[in-house]
Amino acid sequence: MKAMTFVLFGATGDLAKRKIFPALFNLYVDQKLPASYAIVGVGRRTYTVAEFLRSVEQSVSDAAQRREVDSSCIHAFLSTIRYVSVDVTQKDDYLALLGQVIQCEQEWNLPQNRLFYLSVAPEFFDVIAGHIKASGLCETTGWKRLIIEKPFGRDLQSAEALNEKLCASFAEEEIYRIDHYLGKPMVRNLEAIEFANPIFQAIWNNKYIANVQITANETVGVEDRAGYYDHAGALRDMVQNHMLQLLMMIAMHLPNRINAKEIRKEKRKVMEAVRPMETEDVMRSVVRGQYGAGNLQGHSVVSYRDEPGVEADSMTDTFVALRVWIDDPLWSGVPFYIRTGKRIKEKSTKIIIEFKNPLEGSYRNQQTAPNLLILNINPEEGISLQVNQKNAAERGKLEPVTVDFSTDASQAPEAYELLLSDAIQGDSTYFAHWMEVKLAWKWVTPILEAFAQNQVPLHVYPAGSYGPQESAELLMEQGFSWWQDEEREREMSGVHSR
Amino acid sequence: MKAMTFVLFGATGDLAKRKIFPALFNLYVDQKLPASYAIVGVGRRTYTVAEFLRSVEQSVSDAAQRREVDSSCIHAFLSTIRYVSVDVTQKDDYLALLGQVIQCEQEWNLPQNRLFYLSVAPEFFDVIAGHIKASGLCETTGWKRLIIEKPFGRDLQSAEALNEKLCASFAEEEIYRIDHYLGKPMVRNLEAIEFANPIFQAIWNNKYIANVQITANETVGVEDRAGYYDHAGALRDMVQNHMLQLLMMIAMHLPNRINAKEIRKEKRKVMEAVRPMETEDVMRSVVRGQYGAGNLQGHSVVSYRDEPGVEADSMTDTFVALRVWIDDPLWSGVPFYIRTGKRIKEKSTKIIIEFKNPLEGSYRNQQTAPNLLILNINPEEGISLQVNQKNAAERGKLEPVTVDFSTDASQAPEAYELLLSDAIQGDSTYFAHWMEVKLAWKWVTPILEAFAQNQVPLHVYPAGSYGPQESAELLMEQGFSWWQDEEREREMSGVHSR
Repeated sequence: MKAMTFVLFGATGDLAKRKIFPALFNLYVDQKLPASYAIVGVGRRTYTVAEFLRSVEQSVSDAAQRREVDSSCIHAFLSTIRYVSVDVTQKDDYLALLGQVIQCEQEWNLPQNRLFYLSVAPEFFDVIAGHIKASGLCETTGWKRLIIEKPFGRDLQSAEALNEKLCASFAEEEIYRIDHYLGKPMVRNLEAIEFANPIFQAIWNNKYIANVQITANETVGVEDRAGYYDHAGALRDMVQNHMLQLLMMIAMHLPNRINAKEIRKEKRKVMEAVRPMETEDVMRSVVRGQYGAGNLQGHSVVSYRDEPGVEADSMTDTFVALRVWIDDPLWSGVPFYIRTGKRIKEKSTKIIIEFKNPLEGSYRNQQTAPNLLILNINPEEGISLQVNQKNAAERGKLEPVTVDFSTDASQAPEAYELLLSDAIQGDSTYFAHWMEVKLAWKWVTPILEAFAQNQVPLHVYPAGSYGPQESAELLMEQGFSWWQDEEREREMSGVHSR
Repeated sequence: MKAMTFVLFGATGDLAKRKIFPALFNLYVDQKLPASYAIVGVGRRTYTVAEFLRSVEQSVSDAAQRREVDSSCIHAFLSTIRYVSVDVTQKDDYLALLGQVIQCEQEWNLPQNRLFYLSVAPEFFDVIAGHIKASGLCETTGWKRLIIEKPFGRDLQSAEALNEKLCASFAEEEIYRIDHYLGKPMVRNLEAIEFANPIFQAIWNNKYIANVQITANETVGVEDRAGYYDHAGALRDMVQNHMLQLLMMIAMHLPNRINAKEIRKEKRKVMEAVRPMETEDVMRSVVRGQYGAGNLQGHSVVSYRDEPGVEADSMTDTFVALRVWIDDPLWSGVPFYIRTGKRIKEKSTKIIIEFKNPLEGSYRNQQTAPNLLILNINPEEGISLQVNQKNAAERGKLEPVTVDFSTDASQAPEAYELLLSDAIQGDSTYFAHWMEVKLAWKWVTPILEAFAQNQVPLHVYPAGSYGPQESAELLMEQGFSWWQDEEREREMSGVHSR
């Protein structure tokens, strides 16, 4: 790890307080920061350094998750932090920032390695990148990197415009686009599951896999984000970025070498092979939903349209289910089902791989359950495998048994620690490459348009359900069901107790 | 289930007390005996029925494993039992037995379905079978079956002679040869693991499997069986029957139909494909061992030659390790390693399937552990799978994680319950077919001869070890090691902490 200066825009903001400073502190304690470095906080408020450090100290103490915070340790950490007040739209303010950065570099004898983290509203991404360049902050004798928070555009056009502007200041390989799903340990683990286990690698294809189900369900509603969300919707907020990243991670082919460049190449190849949707495909293969009033975990909750800040006639999607086909030799004929919703009965992010069951029914007139590989991402992390075995107590009746490969996640680092640590080391594996972002926007465009033109019905589902019934019907067309939904569980337990 | 009469020879013997009557009682309680039936105990002692029933009651009470014994239940069970005193070498005594059987059939209005269980010393198997026929016990209007305890011969010749005599009275499909390993729930489960799980079926071949390790180790020494054991040895006592049965169960191909006939056909095909050993193969591929003095679980124990009843210069094998090749398209090139020993460090019967690791070393310069499927048969029952995943707490370092598919075995029936229940129902799947027995004897013959002629060194290993070092070297020739031996565990943990 090279010594460097970490410049954090939005240093007084909510994300910095809740996530970024605690992550940096944990990396510091774990000695995962370079031996020499400086952190320069950038915010609009005119804090003194002392005032700013008090707020950092507070946020680090509040967020301390895994360990007791040692006060001598925290003071050593704070001693590496400076603060500069900057109006990010004011060109001249960047000269003060440049001065502070150079002062840090001289004071701690740091090479000119500069990491800029834009934890600010998206409309400032391009503005700040432009000023960084104009001010000379980019003219380093070392490396420079730019970390960008989401969202990256709100459609293909705006994403392309943003990217063009960023690229005027930073090269693609210098840009680290955060998708915090790629910071989740279990999502990073997908690669190991697929590639480091010959027994899974052997069956990771359309000969053995019947379908793949990718779910990201939340129990929460729109909360206080209506202003943003009512103009975004689930497709923009979840599918274009997180869900398609999960799709790419689970469907990528074995790379020639397992490194950032080759993995991103394979992910891009998946996105290129995802079958494009025409308007009529959207109508057949996409289910749009919006939550109505309902009951969730014993509380009645209001409908989406009754949420504060939401238009009374809003047509925004709070639920989307999609059937996706990947036209390549590995996945031809295997449907990938994606769904995400708010106000769903249970919070759950997971990928379930259902294997084909060629011996179904032929096994001594007993039905066998399909083998399932269940990759739990949130709130629990872990891998489960469902296999059939004989129940010795019942004269060898076949029954499925599910086992968890869960490991203790309590000591696992936060997503932001992993992401920051990667960026500091220059490892871009788990950041979204521009081509991934671009292809994902391109792919969702016909769906966004069909939604905007109301060519797809908006199904209202009761809060506390598993989404509209049409979501289940989407799978039934191929003879499948969403695994682990309560109804399905009940049905299966019926089958097995026959 | 058809009503029947169960005739138990050796009804006052140790096995009857410890296993057979408790098993029959459990089957009775679980309603797994026919609605009508009679049990006729046959023994040499001149018990009254009342005396005999008292001893049965005692043995059922002593052995009650899974449940409280209800006294009304036990008396109902005892009411179905009769006793006849028979000198099995005396032809005339069988007429008394025939009279008792017919009397039972008339009293309870039973069809003439007769199951004869020979729980007697092997030298009486043929004698009894002959007298059963001569006395007219075989002339039934219903079915007749013969259950035979082990050992079935002490070499190919004696086994063939025995079988010929049995076949004069019973047809092959009427003979149920007990191999109590085939009564173990986990051994019966092997078939389900292999055939009811497409994900395992897909990789159950030489493309994915590196080697198979079949272990049956005991901590006990020869105990009070020296008189028998010193003339038998591990190869006869364990390998010819149990270990080769495990080999057949794990290596059989998917049958066309999953029933007794087809499964036994596939098992026989395995045994036919096991590469025969010439004398020079025995020297290369078989390790013979005998335990010396040593320390086991904190106690010093004497050498085999110092055991009571063992010859002071005994060359009997208390340990055997073998490398076996199966010359068929599925297993060509996959070594099967078999070992069994007394006075080994830990009691363990298990099968470990080690999968090939084509990505070893190519995974970001990290070594990956091979995938293992571990089938624990004794003393624990259960399936474990070792896969690689990333350790989130250590920057994604790959590490193997093993998970257990163990189910609660406390409610599982005893091996004898399962075997008796099968025989009563006429299901011979888990009994040794004559062809299996014959082929197994044929296959071990050159090894028995090489042992007898001392063409193979007898390695003395310390009691409490994992057998002679030559056993480990047998695997090292193909670059493998016995998994889960303590030493191996230590070595592997060294690899992973690098």
